[in-house]
This record gives sequence, C-alpha cells and structure tokens, in this order.
Amino acid sequence: MPLLVMKFGGTSVATLDRIARAAKRVAREVANGYDVIVIVSAMSGKTNELVGWVEETSPLYDAREYDAVVASGEIVTAGLMALRLQEMEIPARSWQGWQVPVRTTSAHSAARIEDIPTDNINAKFGEGFKVAVVAGFQGLSPENRVTTLGRGGSDTTAVAFAAAFGAERCDIYTDVDGVYTTDPRIEDKARKLDKIAFEEMLELASLGAKVLQTRSVELAMRYKVKLRVLSSFEEYDPNAGTLVCDEEEIVEQNAVSGVAYSRDEAKMTLISVADRPGIASAIFTPLSEAGVNVDMIVQNISEEGRTDMTFSCPTNQVARAEKALTSAKERGDINYREIVADTDVAKVSIVGIGMRSQAGIAAKMFDVLAREGINIKVITTSEIKISVLVDRKYMELAVQSLHDAFELEKS
Amino acid sequence: MPLLVMKFGGTSVATLDRIARAAKRVAREVANGYDVIVIVSAMSGKTNELVGWVEETSPLYDAREYDAVVASGEIVTAGLMALRLQEMEIPARSWQGWQVPVRTTSAHSAARIEDIPTDNINAKFGEGFKVAVVAGFQGLSPENRVTTLGRGGSDTTAVAFAAAFGAERCDIYTDVDGVYTTDPRIEDKARKLDKIAFEEMLELASLGAKVLQTRSVELAMRYKVKLRVLSSFEEYDPNAGTLVCDEEEIVEQNAVSGVAYSRDEAKMTLISVADRPGIASAIFTPLSEAGVNVDMIVQNISEEGRTDMTFSCPTNQVARAEKALTSAKERGDINYREIVADTDVAKVSIVGIGMRSQAGIAAKMFDVLAREGINIKVITTSEIKISVLVDRKYMELAVQSLHDAFELEKS
Repeated sequence: MPLLVMKFGGTSVATLDRIARAAKRVAREVANGYDVIVIVSAMSGKTNELVGWVEETSPLYDAREYDAVVASGEIVTAGLMALRLQEMEIPARSWQGWQVPVRTTSAHSAARIEDIPTDNINAKFGEGFKVAVVAGFQGLSPENRVTTLGRGGSDTTAVAFAAAFGAERCDIYTDVDGVYTTDPRIEDKARKLDKIAFEEMLELASLGAKVLQTRSVELAMRYKVKLRVLSSFEEYDPNAGTLVCDEEEIVEQNAVSGVAYSRDEAKMTLISVADRPGIASAIFTPLSEAGVNVDMIVQNISEEGRTDMTFSCPTNQVARAEKALTSAKERGDINYREIVADTDVAKVSIVGIGMRSQAGIAAKMFDVLAREGINIKVITTSEIKISVLVDRKYMELAVQSLHDAFELEKS
Repeated sequence: MPLLVMKFGGTSVATLDRIARAAKRVAREVANGYDVIVIVSAMSGKTNELVGWVEETSPLYDAREYDAVVASGEIVTAGLMALRLQEMEIPARSWQGWQVPVRTTSAHSAARIEDIPTDNINAKFGEGFKVAVVAGFQGLSPENRVTTLGRGGSDTTAVAFAAAFGAERCDIYTDVDGVYTTDPRIEDKARKLDKIAFEEMLELASLGAKVLQTRSVELAMRYKVKLRVLSSFEEYDPNAGTLVCDEEEIVEQNAVSGVAYSRDEAKMTLISVADRPGIASAIFTPLSEAGVNVDMIVQNISEEGRTDMTFSCPTNQVARAEKALTSAKERGDINYREIVADTDVAKVSIVGIGMRSQAGIAAKMFDVLAREGINIKVITTSEIKISVLVDRKYMELAVQSLHDAFELEKS
C-alpha cells in the first residue's frame, strides 16, 4: 500500500473544527488508496501556555521536566484527531512518541531523532488500520524520558517518518499556501513556486522565510523525501502548494528562485584592529561563547598592520556582542580603537540553484541596487546565494527591484 | 529511609501558586527525614476540559483515545511539581504512568492497577533523589497503551503506591480538613474525626461523603495502608486531618461514628407482583442490564400469591427503571399491577463499627426519628450501618436529631 505522511501545524489543529477539517483531508487521501501517517502539532497557543508555566515555575528549568510538560500538547491533538477519524469510520489510532518509539538523543529540548523503528506502526497497518496519528515534536531518550526536538520539531518528525517508512511524499499543512518568490506583503507580484530545490529551500529557511524548519529540510534533502508545503485552509487541489524536491526534478530553472530578507540585522565594525595571525579567532571565539549568532563576516585589506573587521548579528544581540568584545580587549586578547554598531540595516538575499551555471548574477544584483541608489554595506556569497546588507529604509525597495529585475513573477 | 506518599487533588494544584504551596508541604516532610512519593491530579477544571473535547469530537468515543487525551492533565502537573521542588533544591523528578510503569488491566477509563514495580523509582531514591512525582490516575495496559483509572483514580494511585512501596502513611491532601461526623453544612455541631476505621470510611464513601474514592479505601483496607485525609489549605500541623486506619488502632469507639445522607434517592414500588421463586431475579436482572443502580431492596410478606416489591435507585434513573420494567412486563417475564415511583425521598444512615458490640442502636435510631414525627419508608442494615429512606423534607431534621441523640459532637 502506498504511504503518505501528512503534517498539520498548530494553526491547522487550533480548534475542534479545524481538527475536523484536517481529518477530512486525511480521509480523502485514504480514499485515494493511501495508508497515512499523520503528524500533529499542539493546538496553537497551547505550547506557549505550557512553556510559560514551566518558566514561571522554574526560570532555569530542568530541560527533562520542560520536555515532559511541553510534549503533552501534541498528545492531546493526536488523540482528538484519531477520534475524529474514527467518527468518519476510518480505522485510526494515536501514537505518543514513546509508543512508536521515536528514539532520540538525550539533548533535552533540542533532541535529534536517531531511529524510528517501523514495526509497531506497520503491524497496525497490517491489521487493517489506515491511519497512524503521531504526536509530533517528541521522542524518547535512551534514559526512557520524554524528549522534544525544539521549536518547529513537528516538521522534523514528519520528514523523519517519511524517510523511515519510505513514504511517497510528506505533505506539510500550514497557514500559507506554499513557498513564494518573495514575501507577498512586500512585493505584490510575488509568485507561488510550484517546485523548489532542497538547497534553495534550505537557504530560504535559514534566511527567515519561516515556512519550514531548517532541520526538516536538511533531513528531507539527505533522505530524498519529497516535501510539499500547502495550506490547510484552501480547497482540495492535488497540485496545491510547493513541492520541495531534488533539483533534478525541476526542469525549467530560473537563475534566481527567490528574494529573501531579514529585518533585524545589525552591522558591527571593529575599527583599527591590530592585524596578526589568529586575530579572527580571538575576536569570534568570545562572541560565540557569549551566544552571539554571527552571520556575515568581512575583513578589510590590512594597512600598516591594522585592519577593520565587520560582522553582522541579530539586532537584539548587539549589547551582548559589545560586552564580550570589551571584555576581550580588557583582557588584552584583542586590540581595537573603537566599536561602531549600525542597527539600521537589513539583509537582502537572492537564492537560486541556477546561479551555479549562469555567470553575471552577482554583477546584475549589484547593478540593480546601484541604479536604485542603494548602497551595499556588506556582501557575502555562497554557491547558490548572494546576500547584501543595506540600510533598512531601502529594504523593501531592494526586494522589489530585485524581484522585478530577475523577472520572478514569470514562471 | 522511611517513605511517605502524599497525594494532592485538583484544587490543591489548580494554579502555580498552589503547586508551590503543595511543594512546601513536601519539602517539610523531606526535612523530617522522609523519602516522598507525590501523586498529583490534573489542575482542577483541566480534566473536564479534556473530557469535553473528547465528547464533542466523538460522542461514543474509543476509550483508548479518551484515556490518552485525558491522562495528559496529570503529566503537566507532575512536571511542574518536580520543577518547583527542584527550585527549592530538593532532588525530584516526574514519572508518567508508563515510565514507572503502573501496570493496569486493559479496561480503559476504568482500569484496575495490577502491579507497580518499585525498582525504577527505588533506583532513583538510591541515587539521592528525595521525591518521585507521579502523574496520578493513569497506567499502562498490556497492549502498551495509556489507561486511566476512572474519576477519583488519583486516590487509588496514591494508596496503591503506598502499598507497593511499604509507605509509613499515605496523606491525601484535599479541600476539606478531614472526615466529619456529618456534613457541617447541615449540622453545625459536626465534629472532625481524628480517626475512622476503614470499614466505616467505606460505608461513608459509598453513602455519598465524597472525601475519598471508594476503591482507594478498599485498597487501603486490604493492604493495611494508613490513610490520612487533610486539607492543603490549612497551616501545617502534624496531627491534622483524619486518619483512616485499622479498627484495632482506634481505642475509644463510639457506637456510631457518623451520619451520612444521600439526597437524590428515589423509591420505586411494584404493586401486586405475582410471587414465585425467581421473581426477584426476573425483576432485578433487567434493571441491572439497563444500568440502574439499585440500592435498597424490600420485599413485603406475600399474601395470596402476590407481593409488593420496593427498591431505591438514584432519582435520575427512575425513567430508565420504568422503561426496563415495562418491557419485562410486556415480554411476560414479570407481572405486576402498577409501578409507583416516589422521587421525594432521601436516604439517611448511621455508621459505626461500635454497632457490632452494642445492642439497641437500631431501636434507638427508629425511636429518635419517631419522636420527630419522621416516617420511615424503607430500612436496610449491614453489620456497621443502618440506612432509612425518609421524605426528603425531613432529611436535615433526621441528620440533626440523630447527630444529637448519639452525641456525635463529643469525642
């Protein structure tokens, strides 16, 4: 029997009505001849409530207890979804993480799935069950305790099940109807992509397009799981949403697939750093230890033994970064004249696997921005992505003009 | 190390503040030198919410899914209680039913505990943990699914743990400060009992004094678990509450320990039943099959081959009882002239193990009621209990005059 994995996020199971609506979608795939593994999140708001109780009870909480409490939200939706399916006369049952069991590491609140044995669930399919409803986001540690996979972990659960059971596809139902060429709130010509390559999705996910959790895309890429993102609020359409797949499956490929942005970036520059071997390590080790997520790094050409070092990080980590650097200077580990923090910047990126085979994409990007009078402050590139920092006031203009210039509204 | 079991009901863990207050009581017993097993209910209102969702999703729900959903409430409080204790620097961890595991039958929603292996929890006590916080009300079926023990099941969990671990005592924290000679809302001279025998508590529990679940008292009696009922809202007092214990431990014993009542009783009489061997079975089998909880039964002396048969049942089961009896008559299984239902009655009972050794208690009871002009409609007795049905309007008067006559305000 062919098998599908269908994952419903918190907004898709927020109420009993929505659970019923999601159950109808499952019923349709059963009618289409599939066995289905349904992965559910907690009702939206529920996880936040549980996290709030834990943090109020114990600010520096034991992550094992946090996990035990917080994982209960998915257990409730799994049971309710199974009941709803039974009401529709579909043989279904719920599975809690430890019942499958979803074996994970002991890294509580950020556990990684190590193994999903398929025999228990397959035995039930063998007995005539059509649907296994699995509580997402959770697993079982080697110490027999409940673990959670971290925020967005239900996406990861879904992909891991699809890989373990060799599912034909993994459908991620959410509150948007797919992956767009850019944010439609900024560019109204933004177009929904029918297909996108794993690598592109990974760049977009980590650049702030919050459709899928990064780890779930990595996992899908590694195990070649066909992933579809689609809305649980639209009418049924077998071709709905965006398919995230291997690049070989994408026949026509624009050079650029999407324009991403991130608003809360800050640029920090250390002026006149004494340049010597190991200086980058001396600067970035204390930042890493202070929990600063450094993104882009640029080192200017050294003159007379001194250089400027520029990096970007989230705006709300600027104070922490300054403190870490000041301490390092006081300890004599590094030497610089001053720190300049610019918190009025934003990151704009173009992403596309087509860049690999087409020259001149970077030049075109810089030209487009120059024509609009947008100054580029920092540039970084990867094989399939070019990111620039610009003044935040130009962010929307940059996104729109790049979307236009690369003709992303056309498929 | 001596061990205590402490159970906190829903109102005692209804908010984070109350969980903190309960944790303080646990901390005090740890300071007194005890290892403690804490059994928690769900936050009050939470179980009803979950049950409501299940019933709305599936009116004739699969009890296995019901159990999975409903048992999640206790999991949340167990984790929060463990966190709160950790904040007080007490080594504690939470245990879900399947982690212990609390092995039960497969009778979902009304499962019975079959076995509680002590090795997992004892191993943790051996490692220096002082408190095991166990989610009450739940267990694990032989099929590896979550079961629940039915309403009030956390009391049963607590007693079963006390028996399995050989606890010195099982303290049941609730919203009343003990067991009273009668309901203080009806008789303001009602006195809290310091001690009560298991047998008496069983009669009181089944007569409607809703302090402890009947099954938990049965279990405590069978395994000789000392049970203490006390309020989680009173100041700490080592002698607080009521101790439910073996009758040998009660030195001074009044003939009567308490007066109980039940308001929602109905009296039903079948007039002129054709009397023959097997007639009682022919009447009460269909009632039992219809789910009618028959309590008292009285058969009048037979005259000329016909008799009257009277029984009592809860008021809200009268219609069901009438339907079952009418059907049985139509089928020709029984023969009677008419059914008379009296729904304006109440049951009043006196309970006391001292009755066994003192004669004249029943006579005194009937005399007291007669002096007040209260007509007795039905009488039943057991070794340690006498119950009468009276007109409901006399219920309070009957309770008060019996409380007075047997001098229950005096210890």
